[in-house]
Amino acid sequence: MSLLVVGSVAFDDLETPFGKQDRVLGGSASYFSLSASRFHPVQVVAVVGEDFGPEHYQVFEGRPIDLAGLVRKPGQSFRWKGAYGFDLNEAQTLETHLNVFAGFHPELPSAFQSAPYLFLGNIDPVLQLDVVRQMAHRPRWIAMDTMNFWIQGAPEALKETLREVDILLVNEGEARALAGEHNLLKAYRKIQAMGPQILVVKRGEYGAVLMTPSEVFIAPAFPLEDVFDPTGAGDTFAGGFLGHLAREGRMDLDTLKCAILRGAVLASFTVERFGTQNLEVVTEEAIRERLKAFSAMIRVNGL
Amino acid sequence: MSLLVVGSVAFDDLETPFGKQDRVLGGSASYFSLSASRFHPVQVVAVVGEDFGPEHYQVFEGRPIDLAGLVRKPGQSFRWKGAYGFDLNEAQTLETHLNVFAGFHPELPSAFQSAPYLFLGNIDPVLQLDVVRQMAHRPRWIAMDTMNFWIQGAPEALKETLREVDILLVNEGEARALAGEHNLLKAYRKIQAMGPQILVVKRGEYGAVLMTPSEVFIAPAFPLEDVFDPTGAGDTFAGGFLGHLAREGRMDLDTLKCAILRGAVLASFTVERFGTQNLEVVTEEAIRERLKAFSAMIRVNGL
Repeated sequence: MSLLVVGSVAFDDLETPFGKQDRVLGGSASYFSLSASRFHPVQVVAVVGEDFGPEHYQVFEGRPIDLAGLVRKPGQSFRWKGAYGFDLNEAQTLETHLNVFAGFHPELPSAFQSAPYLFLGNIDPVLQLDVVRQMAHRPRWIAMDTMNFWIQGAPEALKETLREVDILLVNEGEARALAGEHNLLKAYRKIQAMGPQILVVKRGEYGAVLMTPSEVFIAPAFPLEDVFDPTGAGDTFAGGFLGHLAREGRMDLDTLKCAILRGAVLASFTVERFGTQNLEVVTEEAIRERLKAFSAMIRVNGL
Repeated sequence: MSLLVVGSVAFDDLETPFGKQDRVLGGSASYFSLSASRFHPVQVVAVVGEDFGPEHYQVFEGRPIDLAGLVRKPGQSFRWKGAYGFDLNEAQTLETHLNVFAGFHPELPSAFQSAPYLFLGNIDPVLQLDVVRQMAHRPRWIAMDTMNFWIQGAPEALKETLREVDILLVNEGEARALAGEHNLLKAYRKIQAMGPQILVVKRGEYGAVLMTPSEVFIAPAFPLEDVFDPTGAGDTFAGGFLGHLAREGRMDLDTLKCAILRGAVLASFTVERFGTQNLEVVTEEAIRERLKAFSAMIRVNGL
């Protein structure tokens, strides 16, 4: 009954106005699994190099995270170097070294092929579709992320993959680019026609918008005094959101809304420290407390 | 028991990707009074020129808007020409002709001097303070708007005025500039130390943040399929927000939150047509309906 994620595990060199740190554990599958596993067991399919040592495996230990699909290959792990300006909204990519990720071809261990919930992290849509086809039967839901690189560079493959997808999570610019439409409500209808009935638009510090065939829900981000490093916020959000959905086993509107808030709260912890550092140590109680405060912050009585 | 507004009445030449229109009724006091008067009687102090004709007075007729403080002077009214790009977030000012507004020195009719609620629209902070000093006694609350022009150009006068103010409504960039602090939570505390205990940060299409000494409330904007002309959205928002507060005569957190939603809903009507056109004709029922839909859109059950 696990939530299967296919994505990247990487080392990031990060620079923000508040400091810099090299070789920080990162990648979509890392943030996603550390976040989602707070709510539901996760299975990881990804590739790492020989530089991924016992201290890195250890980060995932003692959690309901199955690393049977984490393949270790000769060579170096995916490495990304990025910097953020003072407004922290957009990363500037300084270097990308795909390394072992260049030849990544996800292969699902047989125990993973019957996962009822599937998250396709941001990789080549051809590989995303291939993962779907490796499943023994169609998962209850399939969620995915993508980015402008694929929207511009592989639109046909992307559209073929989207036909299999129930929930698309992208940022605002990506939703607009994919639909060829600036207005989000109109963009949703075009994306809905491509396959995904549920669209989650990530807006960074402005929160997220959930769009379903019947309703729109708009949630802010949890406001913080100190945002340290926004890397991984989107994948942490996706993990909290989908982890909660998997745990609940339902997709009604109230469950979806609660899931959005959990994703936002988990992401708020991630950005308070470099990489996955805060996500690794944050307590269940701290998550519960922040969720409670967040809920009060958006609640309106007396309308 | 009126809500007194001091601001501008202007004619705007507007250009958006969806069309252009010249000599549209505008100015902060126009949008504010048409919006606030949906909830509470309004008194207007502003100046117009000889080009302000009976057809313009007529816009305000049949509403609880007292124009005894709207002075008509020889010359032309304030004229602003602006254009918006496709994302509609920021206006590009093409021309500004202050005309009669250049010599504007607000004089409060004696009947206006005991208004219990005061909104100081975005004008020279020296004039804003002068208005406060013309009041027979201190209003129950004083709200104000300002902009970067005064934040940069008249910081001392602005700070003197801010000491008299309870509620400051500014956009995100203005809040940051005023406080000299990027983070909004920290910016609020600096602004609070300057006087206003309540800060409302307007975020355009991303909604608004209400900050009080005890709580933060974050509201989205009402999502629209067709945003036509964003001119006046901020003043319409201020009108709905403060009009509701004046009507309720309370400032508890729930009332403040409900007021924010009303401001957002009124603003959503304004931006659907040029200038004040939609705000003039929208029905009470349409406002109620949209408020209901908006409330459902942000409500989370089952947390």
